[in-house]
Amino acid sequence: MDIIMDTLERITPVSQELLRQAQTRLDNRTKPLGSLGRLEEFARRVVATSGNPDPDVGKKVIFTFAGDHGVTEEGVSLFPREVTPQMVLNFLSGGAGINVLARHVGADVRVVDVGVDYDFAEVAGLIHKKVARGTKNFAKGPAMTRAETLAALTVGIELADQCRAEGVGLVGTGEMGIGNTTPSSAIIAAISGKTVAEVTHRGTGIGDAALINKIRVIEQGLALNKPDPQDPLDVLAKVGGLEIAAIAGLVLGCAANSIPVVIDGFISTAGALIASELHPNVRDYIFAAHESVEIGHSFMLERIGVEPILDLRFRLGEGTGAALAMTLIEAGVKILKEMATFEQAGVSQG
Amino acid sequence: MDIIMDTLERITPVSQELLRQAQTRLDNRTKPLGSLGRLEEFARRVVATSGNPDPDVGKKVIFTFAGDHGVTEEGVSLFPREVTPQMVLNFLSGGAGINVLARHVGADVRVVDVGVDYDFAEVAGLIHKKVARGTKNFAKGPAMTRAETLAALTVGIELADQCRAEGVGLVGTGEMGIGNTTPSSAIIAAISGKTVAEVTHRGTGIGDAALINKIRVIEQGLALNKPDPQDPLDVLAKVGGLEIAAIAGLVLGCAANSIPVVIDGFISTAGALIASELHPNVRDYIFAAHESVEIGHSFMLERIGVEPILDLRFRLGEGTGAALAMTLIEAGVKILKEMATFEQAGVSQG
Repeated sequence: MDIIMDTLERITPVSQELLRQAQTRLDNRTKPLGSLGRLEEFARRVVATSGNPDPDVGKKVIFTFAGDHGVTEEGVSLFPREVTPQMVLNFLSGGAGINVLARHVGADVRVVDVGVDYDFAEVAGLIHKKVARGTKNFAKGPAMTRAETLAALTVGIELADQCRAEGVGLVGTGEMGIGNTTPSSAIIAAISGKTVAEVTHRGTGIGDAALINKIRVIEQGLALNKPDPQDPLDVLAKVGGLEIAAIAGLVLGCAANSIPVVIDGFISTAGALIASELHPNVRDYIFAAHESVEIGHSFMLERIGVEPILDLRFRLGEGTGAALAMTLIEAGVKILKEMATFEQAGVSQG
Repeated sequence: MDIIMDTLERITPVSQELLRQAQTRLDNRTKPLGSLGRLEEFARRVVATSGNPDPDVGKKVIFTFAGDHGVTEEGVSLFPREVTPQMVLNFLSGGAGINVLARHVGADVRVVDVGVDYDFAEVAGLIHKKVARGTKNFAKGPAMTRAETLAALTVGIELADQCRAEGVGLVGTGEMGIGNTTPSSAIIAAISGKTVAEVTHRGTGIGDAALINKIRVIEQGLALNKPDPQDPLDVLAKVGGLEIAAIAGLVLGCAANSIPVVIDGFISTAGALIASELHPNVRDYIFAAHESVEIGHSFMLERIGVEPILDLRFRLGEGTGAALAMTLIEAGVKILKEMATFEQAGVSQG
């Protein structure tokens, strides 16, 4: 618990003065005031989160955390459980959606086994941080122990610390875990008090009957485990999962290390919600990549207090939305740093 | 008029069979069906517009057309008229917003003088296609002659033909012209029959009194010139401008040459609307970069029948929204071409 308490203590609000300075600099570039809209917001927020008037976001890393879920035995997902390790290998050989999009935007993908129910042995390129071989079925008891929860959070925090040491300018979150929209919906319902039906959707594409079953399973799990909505770590432990905990840790660690962090879709946002409930200033460091197709996502973004950047009707995860949002954020930083001023260009002001 | 008639005759509907084939190929990539949302739409539409199952959009060009507007003497803009040539020089020296964003996404910017009221003489890097030194004040008479209108359209068509010869895979539109939201609003009002107030906004940032004046000027111009809503070229000639005509020509030319074309914001969309009114299949070739802050923009996009890709609250023009949308379209094409299939990756299907 020490590393988590230490990390929380390192999180501070961003500087309002840096936000103002960055906007003043933007206002002197050759364009009507504010005419690059959200790109200007991205630029000034990266300045403020990094604490650097001239931030460098050239080095971009996306972490794709993989974990399995005991609750898949309740038939909540369209895909079989073995797809989690299969996709991990696909990530490592560069053939998945996240690989294509990360290459396109010049970001590294780092694949982390934090809880896959498969023995990867010495597979090269994988970051081996397995805490357990998947969570327990939360419809029948707690998904994780408190110790497992803290261990998975610590994985994320330590990776963020390492990014700071490496000079990474922008971090993205991603995940792979068959069944993981189920604990994500459970987290939102537990924290918000909304009904499960209001925040539960079709994941990878389940039909009507399976959706009814998924809602029933989550309701049963919440009734049985009684997570305490005032204690985000209790909610996380009760429903899982390991990759969601690692994302929560990564977001906390990025905030503690002054690194802007781009959260991907529904599952990543559940992790970020836990982080944001643990410390009110975490939100200052978060960029929300996109509006997911999953219902319940908008609610989480509103609760965290961030506005999604893209709306491309994604529902894949892995970090795919984060990759594309990261290139837009980088574009905003370049506007700040590379555009000519009115004086430099000899352009009259309005 | 011959080149325009010839161009219209070359425009055909895209192949429904190619759209289906591209979606089948996407459906076999390692992701849940349809889970990359609009990226999949971009990929299949690029296949269909290019007529190529393996399209290459690596070579991307943005045309920024510059022109002046006689109607600026009515005080419709916040910025003085000399900003048009000043910004052209800024584009050529690489310091404007469009330069920064085009570099970011790997697109070339080609700056075209189609109607600036300034003698650029032999300025290097500029594409010299001046049809006139600005339009006439449409509050007092027609903005352009029919001959000027056709000449400016032809500039755009010929540039598209040249792109085909060069193997350009994706074209973006952009513009610079102090005062050019005024004719754009006039075009929408004339074609749609909506009131001028419904489709007229603040441009670069004019205040309330100036907005009331801008609306009055457009109403006066439409009442005086009586453009025929059934004749898009008459509307274009009556209100202008030269850069809007060139954009209309570029869009027509791209459609005729099977090149997907990404239209930027409010002014570019006015040009695309003219093109789309001239031929019903033009819309198949158009990607709408973003939702502009200018009111009236959504209406035009609906009338053309295209859905905006981004909503970043831009109101700059130049092609800035197009640049960012182009990289998302390219990402979609890469998803189609670079992702592993289920079989290749050894991943079980749902």
